[in-house]
Amino acid sequence: MLSVLRRSFGKVAPYLHANLVVRCKATQEAKTALIILAPGAEEMEFTISADVLRRGKINVTVAGLSCDPVKCSRSVVIVPDTSLEEAVSRGNYDVVVLPGGLAGNKALMNSAAVGELLRCQDSRGGLIAAICAAPTALAKHGIGKGKSVTSHPDMKPQLEKDYCYIDDKTVVQDKNIITSRGPGSTFDFALKITEELAGVEMAKEVAKAMLWTYKL
Amino acid sequence: MLSVLRRSFGKVAPYLHANLVVRCKATQEAKTALIILAPGAEEMEFTISADVLRRGKINVTVAGLSCDPVKCSRSVVIVPDTSLEEAVSRGNYDVVVLPGGLAGNKALMNSAAVGELLRCQDSRGGLIAAICAAPTALAKHGIGKGKSVTSHPDMKPQLEKDYCYIDDKTVVQDKNIITSRGPGSTFDFALKITEELAGVEMAKEVAKAMLWTYKL
Repeated sequence: MLSVLRRSFGKVAPYLHANLVVRCKATQEAKTALIILAPGAEEMEFTISADVLRRGKINVTVAGLSCDPVKCSRSVVIVPDTSLEEAVSRGNYDVVVLPGGLAGNKALMNSAAVGELLRCQDSRGGLIAAICAAPTALAKHGIGKGKSVTSHPDMKPQLEKDYCYIDDKTVVQDKNIITSRGPGSTFDFALKITEELAGVEMAKEVAKAMLWTYKL
Repeated sequence: MLSVLRRSFGKVAPYLHANLVVRCKATQEAKTALIILAPGAEEMEFTISADVLRRGKINVTVAGLSCDPVKCSRSVVIVPDTSLEEAVSRGNYDVVVLPGGLAGNKALMNSAAVGELLRCQDSRGGLIAAICAAPTALAKHGIGKGKSVTSHPDMKPQLEKDYCYIDDKTVVQDKNIITSRGPGSTFDFALKITEELAGVEMAKEVAKAMLWTYKL
């Protein structure tokens, strides 16, 4: 199915790009987020992150590893705004967000472009946020070693050697690295990013509208 | 942008259909869910519902009001599995699920096909689940009047005349009608549906894998 979608979407990319340029110009003052949507990403972790950050007035770009529609871990198919290559060519982002999902995370680990983006973001002190399996993509690309992190518990063995692993918090921030544990902690993960970029009052307001209790 | 996507997707529909038929044959024993994805639906409420039910081994069909990709309330674009017309032609479902979102709910309210489906589902005692703004679509189509329901608090004035409105529960079940309040209660909403169709042990197992505390 996806090969068919891929062929159909080739011609759509320029329109998506034009749409995004307009949005960027209209919101130059807003903070920016790049969420990388890889095939097999956990769709709840992706969608909650994108939705919450947009509710927080953050200018979110959803980048696929290509422009193709992305089949996620439980078969929800999501159309990215643009490709990673195109998104990166536009400049820096205030945060780069990596959703989890086993296959999605494997794709993030195997992508040289993701590695290059993360090292660039880290070297300038830009915020990097990863949830569930995705903290292991940080490890693979050599990001934030020695810092405190958390992840899905199943990933702990891959992280505890190189990081200070935290078991008892749903969201962990150590300077520019924010990590979290799984689908059930994604609201708090996304609200923590919102708090960092748009302030605590905005995070509280967004949480309230979603009927979510945000524990600071 | 969506008009371009729509043109591109016309040719994709038959492949989506074929794919679904194969999946249906492969899982004849599983319970079935139809989730209606209308333009402007709240993407977290949709995605969490679809993902959690699929984790619970329920055979989920995502039906758009047409076959077109759906732009949700915070601009996430999701490709439905099929159209509502096609989905309904295949027979009955164990549950019909309505995500919220103001514009999405308005589309559900204005759809004669949605009304017909809901009345058919209700008349045979089939499960109907609606969250956030969507309980007002039940009211509009004359479903479950007199029963206990909840919703996003902003919708209470539209419901309290015809229903027994519950303020202090995140998920309310009254016989075949399950209702819930908003994005922050969607995990519990979807787990309640999972519990009804696949049993409490499955609901607990799904919750545990998501690192979610499911309060029965």
